[in-house]
Amino acid sequence: MPIKFEILAEDKATRARAGLLHTAHGVVETPAFMPVGTGGTVKGMTQDELETLGVQILLGNTYHLYLRPGHEMIREAGGLHRFMSWPHPILTDSGGFQVMSLKTLGRVTEDGVWFRSHVDGSSHFLSPERAVEIQLALGADIIMCLDECVEYPATPETLQRAVSLTTRWAKRAKEALARETGNGIRDTGPSIGGSFLGPNEERAGMEKSRANAPTPDSEPPIPIRLAGDAYPVSRLPYPTLFGIVQGGTDKALRRQSAEALLDLDFEGYALGGLAVGEPKAEMLDTAEFTAELLPRDRPRYLMGVGTPEDLLEGVARGIDMFDCVLPTRNARNACAFTSEGKVTLKNARYARDDGPLDPSCPCMVCRRYSRAYLRHLFVSGEMLGANLATHHNLHFYLDTMRRIRQSLLFGEFAEFHGRVRSHL
Amino acid sequence: MPIKFEILAEDKATRARAGLLHTAHGVVETPAFMPVGTGGTVKGMTQDELETLGVQILLGNTYHLYLRPGHEMIREAGGLHRFMSWPHPILTDSGGFQVMSLKTLGRVTEDGVWFRSHVDGSSHFLSPERAVEIQLALGADIIMCLDECVEYPATPETLQRAVSLTTRWAKRAKEALARETGNGIRDTGPSIGGSFLGPNEERAGMEKSRANAPTPDSEPPIPIRLAGDAYPVSRLPYPTLFGIVQGGTDKALRRQSAEALLDLDFEGYALGGLAVGEPKAEMLDTAEFTAELLPRDRPRYLMGVGTPEDLLEGVARGIDMFDCVLPTRNARNACAFTSEGKVTLKNARYARDDGPLDPSCPCMVCRRYSRAYLRHLFVSGEMLGANLATHHNLHFYLDTMRRIRQSLLFGEFAEFHGRVRSHL
Repeated sequence: MPIKFEILAEDKATRARAGLLHTAHGVVETPAFMPVGTGGTVKGMTQDELETLGVQILLGNTYHLYLRPGHEMIREAGGLHRFMSWPHPILTDSGGFQVMSLKTLGRVTEDGVWFRSHVDGSSHFLSPERAVEIQLALGADIIMCLDECVEYPATPETLQRAVSLTTRWAKRAKEALARETGNGIRDTGPSIGGSFLGPNEERAGMEKSRANAPTPDSEPPIPIRLAGDAYPVSRLPYPTLFGIVQGGTDKALRRQSAEALLDLDFEGYALGGLAVGEPKAEMLDTAEFTAELLPRDRPRYLMGVGTPEDLLEGVARGIDMFDCVLPTRNARNACAFTSEGKVTLKNARYARDDGPLDPSCPCMVCRRYSRAYLRHLFVSGEMLGANLATHHNLHFYLDTMRRIRQSLLFGEFAEFHGRVRSHL
Repeated sequence: MPIKFEILAEDKATRARAGLLHTAHGVVETPAFMPVGTGGTVKGMTQDELETLGVQILLGNTYHLYLRPGHEMIREAGGLHRFMSWPHPILTDSGGFQVMSLKTLGRVTEDGVWFRSHVDGSSHFLSPERAVEIQLALGADIIMCLDECVEYPATPETLQRAVSLTTRWAKRAKEALARETGNGIRDTGPSIGGSFLGPNEERAGMEKSRANAPTPDSEPPIPIRLAGDAYPVSRLPYPTLFGIVQGGTDKALRRQSAEALLDLDFEGYALGGLAVGEPKAEMLDTAEFTAELLPRDRPRYLMGVGTPEDLLEGVARGIDMFDCVLPTRNARNACAFTSEGKVTLKNARYARDDGPLDPSCPCMVCRRYSRAYLRHLFVSGEMLGANLATHHNLHFYLDTMRRIRQSLLFGEFAEFHGRVRSHL
């Protein structure tokens, strides 16, 4: 089995749990926060720095990587792990959310979705099969089904249509992956398909993929060396596919979506279509309701969430994995998360503040630099400002998650929850 | 004496030498390359990273720091070392070169130079005394006299005028520093002068400075703590002032300028007005001629130079210190210095090149990332591209200098010079 999810502790009062997610590229301690490495980089962070921060799993954006440098180029480079020199776990999304949220959307059909590139305006087609094919080329440990994520608010009809379509697409994604898997070992060597194909050409491409499918092989992974260091292998287990529950804040639809996906039996389940504009209480309520519908022994991933408080509240509702651009995007906009709340670093009040960004934080930035210096960097447009604020914000997120996890392992989550929720 | 220069080895065939420059913030191995930390940051590098790279001394730009955040604010923060958390040696320039090269120049008078801020267009005045006052507020270990740096080519009359003015300004700078020094201990506490003053107001400001001059005191430095770590002291020896030899490529004028400065007896001498457009051979020839005019026991600093080859050739001509924006600015423009020559990282030929940027380089970037990945970062406009290329280029410069120095200490400079010059 490509991943193995192990539960180590469960809170008695809430649905919170701590566990281990075993993948081909290492073990992820859950609950886990996944920094967003959009185009093969967490903006402004070196991979050394991410390791120092204790990042255990990254999220890669299929949409961005498909457009630049292109999934075929990444496959030829040995997959995303090797291309970006990140020998640890990676999860990729399906690309669907970006297609829809970047307003590059064309038609959504039963087959899939047409969209325009935000880079050069060129026209592209994404289907459930194509999303699997691209993610296989990227070589992530966990990949996502293409889903239809609708905006908030949406009519019941729109939500129902999205749930039904997401279900049918999930089935097609699972079948597409099964066609590729064979004995569970994939060959990341030669190209297996064309690029930029429409629905008809795509089917031809998929035929071609099957024709070039790897021969049965159970040899151990072959290490590849890059510049003197050992790097990830060219032959790895196929990724694990997660299904995505949709349905907005409509509980009947969430149940319908979850049950349909459970029939398809995924190894992990994501909660999509949340944090898209609905009130916070509804988001958390829906997350809790949905998490309860999902099997205990499978990881649950709340997509695109959220603030530090959301992480705590999400864990309390049974969520194991999160991703969000907030810590990194806010950092570039001079907004820091601290134990004392948000700090807007361009604020004139910090011009002469020689204290650390967060007095309670042991990160490299808070140990070394003053608020006055950070403010100066942002006011002067120096890129180091974004680098340092990103470092701190990721540390804050990861540290929050570590403390949550620790409290679960020590059976003190309820106490921690009550004590910390007001400070995040 | 605020600095002490110690010569450890001298080449027999050339004028090259290796030494140690002792400062209040530590020892600098010479020959030394000083990365340019324009606005209190080497663009895209954390101070931790600079330390890892082995940077021993930084250059700060007085012009930029005077405008943002302002030298008074930096003084109040405890000086530039503490403000930017760089507890190692710093040299600041006088601001004159930026005023002239950024085309913000107004009138040059006997008193000083009027200029406009490139930030907000406001009008400012810089005199020899003002340049000293600002640099004292910044608190560098080595400061520079205000000089007049003329463009290439220039008429003999222009060059002669610049040499004479630079000499008179050097005398005034030395006198201004002497007025401040007292027993050689400065107080970086309360403000000692106004800001944005013209020539008349400035004299008043200088009076005020003297009125607030520190009382005699020979206590040891008092460590200050910032966010839990020990940081530079608030009471330090006054900086060392370097004179700057001008005269373009005219040897008679270079001699006139050097002799006049020698009469003033500076603790170090810089070669200014070079690398401003003259042919490379003339630059090196002038540097050699000028270096020979300077006392053996004082450090020699070739300002604004240059390429890796220039460093090697400059050392061979008796230069001890260099600064240049090339490694950092070129890096941000996707241009890397390697043992195989310059690499333009956006070039399409690197799209599938999974080799390291420089196969001979042991830096973090070359150990971890491929040319294809670096190209992807630049093509996609990801800031990590600039971060990584800057890291590599600085490593290349510092490593070149370390190898030069090592060859001098082992008495093998001539051989190294012959072997390496063709590869840089």
